Amino acid sequence: MINLKQLFAICLFLVFCTGLHAQDKVPQWGVFELTLKGSDAGDPFINTVLVGEFRHGNEVFRPEGFYDGDGIYKIRFMPDKQGEWTYSVTSNHAELDKKHGSFTCTAADKNVHGPVVVSHKYHFAYADSTAYTPFGTTIYEWAFQNQETQNETIQTLKSSPFNKVRMLAIPPFKGGYVDGPDKLTVFPFVGTSKENFDFSRFNPEFFRRLEKNIKQLEEIGVESDLILFRPYDGGKWGFDKMDDETNIRFLKYMVARFAAFHNIWWSLCNENSFIRQLTDEDWDRYFQVVQKADPYGHLRSIHNADRIYDYTKPWVTHVSLQYYNVAKAPFGSSLLRDIYRKPIVNDEINYEGNIERRWGQLTGEEMTFRFWNVYIGGGFATHGETTSTGWIGKGGKLNGQSPARIAFLKKIVEAGPQEGLTPIDHFYSPNLAGKAGEYYLLYFGKDTPATWDFKLPKEALTDGMKFKVDVIDTWNMTITPVNKTFEIKKSDNYSFSDKSAPVKLTGKPYMALRITRVDGGKTPTKPQKKQNELNEDLN
Amino acid sequence: MINLKQLFAICLFLVFCTGLHAQDKVPQWGVFELTLKGSDAGDPFINTVLVGEFRHGNEVFRPEGFYDGDGIYKIRFMPDKQGEWTYSVTSNHAELDKKHGSFTCTAADKNVHGPVVVSHKYHFAYADSTAYTPFGTTIYEWAFQNQETQNETIQTLKSSPFNKVRMLAIPPFKGGYVDGPDKLTVFPFVGTSKENFDFSRFNPEFFRRLEKNIKQLEEIGVESDLILFRPYDGGKWGFDKMDDETNIRFLKYMVARFAAFHNIWWSLCNENSFIRQLTDEDWDRYFQVVQKADPYGHLRSIHNADRIYDYTKPWVTHVSLQYYNVAKAPFGSSLLRDIYRKPIVNDEINYEGNIERRWGQLTGEEMTFRFWNVYIGGGFATHGETTSTGWIGKGGKLNGQSPARIAFLKKIVEAGPQEGLTPIDHFYSPNLAGKAGEYYLLYFGKDTPATWDFKLPKEALTDGMKFKVDVIDTWNMTITPVNKTFEIKKSDNYSFSDKSAPVKLTGKPYMALRITRVDGGKTPTKPQKKQNELNEDLN
Repeated sequence: MINLKQLFAICLFLVFCTGLHAQDKVPQWGVFELTLKGSDAGDPFINTVLVGEFRHGNEVFRPEGFYDGDGIYKIRFMPDKQGEWTYSVTSNHAELDKKHGSFTCTAADKNVHGPVVVSHKYHFAYADSTAYTPFGTTIYEWAFQNQETQNETIQTLKSSPFNKVRMLAIPPFKGGYVDGPDKLTVFPFVGTSKENFDFSRFNPEFFRRLEKNIKQLEEIGVESDLILFRPYDGGKWGFDKMDDETNIRFLKYMVARFAAFHNIWWSLCNENSFIRQLTDEDWDRYFQVVQKADPYGHLRSIHNADRIYDYTKPWVTHVSLQYYNVAKAPFGSSLLRDIYRKPIVNDEINYEGNIERRWGQLTGEEMTFRFWNVYIGGGFATHGETTSTGWIGKGGKLNGQSPARIAFLKKIVEAGPQEGLTPIDHFYSPNLAGKAGEYYLLYFGKDTPATWDFKLPKEALTDGMKFKVDVIDTWNMTITPVNKTFEIKKSDNYSFSDKSAPVKLTGKPYMALRITRVDGGKTPTKPQKKQNELNEDLN
Repeated sequence: MINLKQLFAICLFLVFCTGLHAQDKVPQWGVFELTLKGSDAGDPFINTVLVGEFRHGNEVFRPEGFYDGDGIYKIRFMPDKQGEWTYSVTSNHAELDKKHGSFTCTAADKNVHGPVVVSHKYHFAYADSTAYTPFGTTIYEWAFQNQETQNETIQTLKSSPFNKVRMLAIPPFKGGYVDGPDKLTVFPFVGTSKENFDFSRFNPEFFRRLEKNIKQLEEIGVESDLILFRPYDGGKWGFDKMDDETNIRFLKYMVARFAAFHNIWWSLCNENSFIRQLTDEDWDRYFQVVQKADPYGHLRSIHNADRIYDYTKPWVTHVSLQYYNVAKAPFGSSLLRDIYRKPIVNDEINYEGNIERRWGQLTGEEMTFRFWNVYIGGGFATHGETTSTGWIGKGGKLNGQSPARIAFLKKIVEAGPQEGLTPIDHFYSPNLAGKAGEYYLLYFGKDTPATWDFKLPKEALTDGMKFKVDVIDTWNMTITPVNKTFEIKKSDNYSFSDKSAPVKLTGKPYMALRITRVDGGKTPTKPQKKQNELNEDLN
């Protein structure tokens, strides 16, 4: 088996000989990489024009390339269609200009479904239409830990329900990163401290290491919600106070290096308003830089602090919100859906843990409760844990009680409607979601009912339809079918019921019901609503 | 005593003689009205240019005039400063052009404080800085009832807590308005039915009557939230399907006639998305027409149905929302504040009543609960009642139980901080509002605690501060002072407490506490927050 170092040496040799190296075959949504040998004179990070034009039939993509140090230039490309692709290179470096070639895009690797995209306005899916529902976790600094801890994090993720990781591209400043066993030696820019960083030169080794982390996540089917800027600098390194030109150069370098990885989401910043000298108009421009440079339209958002960004902007694909209250009732997420008309990802809802800071003190029950609220409200959530192992920072192991419950919720959601959960009758039944006429999840939250009378909102229902009910204990993770088939009949202007016998519950909190149609048949199409009644019901 | 008809006849005579009539003195924020005699040839509603330029020192206002039928042209103006004002008229009608004059603006009438404006970003106030907190009610069709019912509505409002009325400018189509004792004979346009409406000619009598209603509200200190367009037409009259040119002409006519009344708010439409052929881009343009034509910057918003308008647009002064769920917990309103950074008026939260439609079935307790939730969340609400008397349509009398409780809430709010209620520590204390360090309202909603341990979030607090507590029963409308002075001490990283004895409550729902500082002294200024901690608390 060749290891990475040996492979790299071989590539360098080939490039030295030929001036060009690339794969002949690349799987769909894999990373085609063209390596070119050029000059290392001056500062190739500045003012190098290097663009690859990739063609397949009528499709054209123009990813920008990047300088990888030591006279090596690269262009990466993610082919989205199988078949023959040709490419040609344009550069203001004569030795790189007019290079050309071709490769074959073969079938996607097993378990690779392409990048995640917005689907049906409020949901997500993979590019090949395979269902994808984000269940995120927070491991901000995992890429900056030692190899052993990183490997442990990957192992933990593999056996966790989490399929999206929020992670910083640039480390936060912490004393332990400048002194001691966790000391960092490689930074995004050449140099080791504020006194000697050369903001005109990237340090390619830093980015190669980060790419390894992205690939590790890719291998286990996890999306990387990659946070490009962060305020956590304390004036110690200066990565949050670079000038505008450097910020933009950094963004373009990140896109050139990372866009070809299918599991990338761009998170422009964490708690962006804490970088006080950058206005929301600056973030508008940075979004547009990324949008323009990224040929594949990866998902784009930004995570807030005390100033909520305008997520209605056209370059924002989904809402990524830190707003704990939203997760305290299902209506929080459905309200955001109705305002923004985009997928709602509650990317920070407080953390399960036992630290002194109150943002990291949720019980497992409370974290689980908030997850259920969000998904029943038609949104998505991101977990985090702040116990002694400090998952949200370093990763490693998970100690908490919520991951198992989140896995339980995920299984239920993934066994539900393909297109995802839609709030049903949400102004009058705010705890109900699913697919009207076919599938319902009703969540009781902290209420402790003893029984439930079978009653559903009328949308897509007709007399005689039959349903089964499962009683779900969302905390103890049990699903108990009710031994009865329910048959509905119109019971009032708004509802259909089966009044024959109520569903027995447990009198405990955190219960839910799953109600599924069992007698087949097509869901009737929604009748046209009369428009002229004063104060019509909103559906 | 001269009656209105005789006064009108005298004015007409004066105008006939002089060609010009106006007051010599007008109180601040009163309606100066210049009446001019001109031609009634052709269609003076179309293509008449008539603008008054009013000057006082460096101030200039340019309200457009309007044709009032029978060769009478008017320009109205609301002076905002006492002293001498001069005016000159520009018109493409030669007999109106270059008229000029002056008047004296005297002290405002008693109880007149000017138009309501946005204050401190999330609140309202009168132009003279007198406090104003909207407590709205809904009486869509009151202006189209017989005189007796209108008078009854005014009497009811006088003894109610409501200081804002949502009302249609154009009647909704109802069978009773074309046949029977409530039959309407006067419409915004010349004509009486879809077959003969002349959309090129307004019927000035219709607007004169509406002005009387605005003046009636003005006399009792009530704001008119005047709804300019509505979808409630059923294809019967066509007022919701006029062409773009007519819509714009209507808007400008309304502004020319009504803008000089200080108690006007512009509500561009009710349930705007139900006028299906108008897009939000159309509404953008209509907002801008009103904004440009209105010299005084009256408040502007729009009421939604199934598509929420983008309230971040710069021509929208405040959010006017129909979204019942927001009122079900305080965090709904504070979330909207944080998103929109404008005042949040929940203009429709369902109605107290007993009709079959579920949007009009709230108990008095539920309506009161929703009002408290909204004001504790830093927002404002609008009431409505759907009992047998049909208040939300015709007005008349109120039967419900919530108005008295809303009056009780209003008294408490108006006795609170001058600038209004601000949510305090709203991510961790979502049921708390007031002014940190001085005044707190804590609302328990449907919870039924037996006691409350005195504990407040740390903002603006220091050891030794003293407070009094009132126990408020928001439903039974009692305020019971607790016979104790509480003295606080820092109890953890986030709170100050007095652990000496808890406050005894009632074990009933709908309780609140009012906590006020009693030992004087200045509220300490807010210490600067450290910005570099990962996941800082959001305040």
